[in-house]
Amino acid sequence: MSKVILLHKRPVGKPTAQDFEFIDEETPKAAEGQVLLKTLYVSVDPYLRGRMRDVESYVEPFALNEPIQSFIIAEIVESKHPGFTVGEFVTGHLDWKELQVSGGEGLSKVDEKAADLSAYLGVLGMTGLTAYVGLTEIGRPKAGETLLVSGAAGAVGSVVGQVGKLLGCTVIGIAGTDDKIASLKSTFGFDEGINYKTTPDMASAIGKAAPQGVDIYFDNVGGDISDAAFEHINKFGRVPLCGTIATYNDTDTNTGPRLQWRMIQKRILMQGFLLNDFPEKFEAASTQLTQWVKEGKLIYSETIVHGFDQIPQAFIDLFDGKNEGKMIVKI
Amino acid sequence: MSKVILLHKRPVGKPTAQDFEFIDEETPKAAEGQVLLKTLYVSVDPYLRGRMRDVESYVEPFALNEPIQSFIIAEIVESKHPGFTVGEFVTGHLDWKELQVSGGEGLSKVDEKAADLSAYLGVLGMTGLTAYVGLTEIGRPKAGETLLVSGAAGAVGSVVGQVGKLLGCTVIGIAGTDDKIASLKSTFGFDEGINYKTTPDMASAIGKAAPQGVDIYFDNVGGDISDAAFEHINKFGRVPLCGTIATYNDTDTNTGPRLQWRMIQKRILMQGFLLNDFPEKFEAASTQLTQWVKEGKLIYSETIVHGFDQIPQAFIDLFDGKNEGKMIVKI
Repeated sequence: MSKVILLHKRPVGKPTAQDFEFIDEETPKAAEGQVLLKTLYVSVDPYLRGRMRDVESYVEPFALNEPIQSFIIAEIVESKHPGFTVGEFVTGHLDWKELQVSGGEGLSKVDEKAADLSAYLGVLGMTGLTAYVGLTEIGRPKAGETLLVSGAAGAVGSVVGQVGKLLGCTVIGIAGTDDKIASLKSTFGFDEGINYKTTPDMASAIGKAAPQGVDIYFDNVGGDISDAAFEHINKFGRVPLCGTIATYNDTDTNTGPRLQWRMIQKRILMQGFLLNDFPEKFEAASTQLTQWVKEGKLIYSETIVHGFDQIPQAFIDLFDGKNEGKMIVKI
Repeated sequence: MSKVILLHKRPVGKPTAQDFEFIDEETPKAAEGQVLLKTLYVSVDPYLRGRMRDVESYVEPFALNEPIQSFIIAEIVESKHPGFTVGEFVTGHLDWKELQVSGGEGLSKVDEKAADLSAYLGVLGMTGLTAYVGLTEIGRPKAGETLLVSGAAGAVGSVVGQVGKLLGCTVIGIAGTDDKIASLKSTFGFDEGINYKTTPDMASAIGKAAPQGVDIYFDNVGGDISDAAFEHINKFGRVPLCGTIATYNDTDTNTGPRLQWRMIQKRILMQGFLLNDFPEKFEAASTQLTQWVKEGKLIYSETIVHGFDQIPQAFIDLFDGKNEGKMIVKI
């Protein structure tokens, strides 16, 4: 038998364990042209919350009583597909199942000798590429500029900050615990860190941390923190919008200061993006990130939770900021 | 003697006549290297409201008890400057004075035979260039796309819509009287018009007028109208931010729905701009606009008010939408 996790109910507000359902299904068998995949690592990501709503978003909603999907690292345990051999490792957008079959579409092989397998879900996977492409294509950092990153201790944010440093920026990170702030500076080389949970006046704290103002605000969170950041964005500032985790669980309309007038005064560019908007950039980005990882210039952190049964809780814990770096479940 | 208009008090909310002061000064005389200018046409523009505040903006604030400045068309009535001859017409950023001297800096000659003199304050001046550059550089219209313009009957909006049509877009305009809506369609060739003052549900009216959604929202107004427009912006939509007249007179913080999540979902780009950010585009833009005016493809409308004493009221009337097209005072 093989365990499967279904979306049982659409979450209202913060997801709870009751929104998920575990079932057992017969162990699947690879038909001709298929492989059987054993799940090794599962990525849980804030964006999945959006797919749990029954509204139009950038990807179609998950269906009720169907398996949830995310990026997964799996091992080929049976192959009737000429392109794959038993013992190889692959990554792809797969179901939350212990075992599943695939015709090979959308699977990419990963090299377990070049990096730890889990890195392909993080710094060398979607989150690392998202950080690199969003920062370089929309943020367009120049040496000497000031980069502010929210969600800085998260999987995307920690890469954004380090890439900013590698490109010559002064980097300020916002995160929600003193431990995270300490590691932003000691592990990831950020210049300044601000704990938003213990800072009563974020706008003045940002002003103090960025005396020259903010040229790039890489926004992973939205909400009040972004309102405060906007008060310090310089002329011709750029704001790549990567996520709004602060508002994903909101059930009513979310309001804040309107930004248009300030954006005209300062000629600010704000742009929402998804990694998939930049397919032509993946190869170069991946090559650069892999090189920096090998050279030890790009550090990544992971919060690894163990056990298939822990997948829903690991996902829920994202919204309480319990992860540091990429949240991954190891099976 | 020559009349001068000073900023007497900084307006609180909507400007009033009491915010301005008229004084008489001795008729100035041109010194060596100077010209004496007689004011013929004065441009009054919403952006001047921003300069009346004592806060940092994109141009420095007007000083209290000093002359207000805007773009003016003047005639050279005396010249001790080798570059200018009596009887020539010039445009420049000049004081609200009946007569003034200038060393010639920032003055451009205008050809009264190529177009009416007042056109150089509108369709062939700052407002026309702003419309063209904002639409083409940030809006990047493609034939077949849908363009929504707020403040559509205004000086910038009416040019934006017409340029959009000339570039192959379906164009929808938002304005505040039925007469304006009628002229958007009959005079300027817009496909649809929405009167925001008589439309209770702007979001659904925009949805109905733009069944394919909005690819470009050229925003002249901000506020509620922009909130409604955002509900219909398509994937990869572009939002050039040109003005926020709906909020210029607000005295407290202005709030509305936060846009970040929608901007990520739809990968929307929003960018504040000023004409002066694109100096390298002026010449080509001006050539194109002049050609379209000569060919009769680009219609412009003006609201011309007569008399130097009417300048403050003409400015105040902008905020009640009393102008159709460019508001100009003829002396």
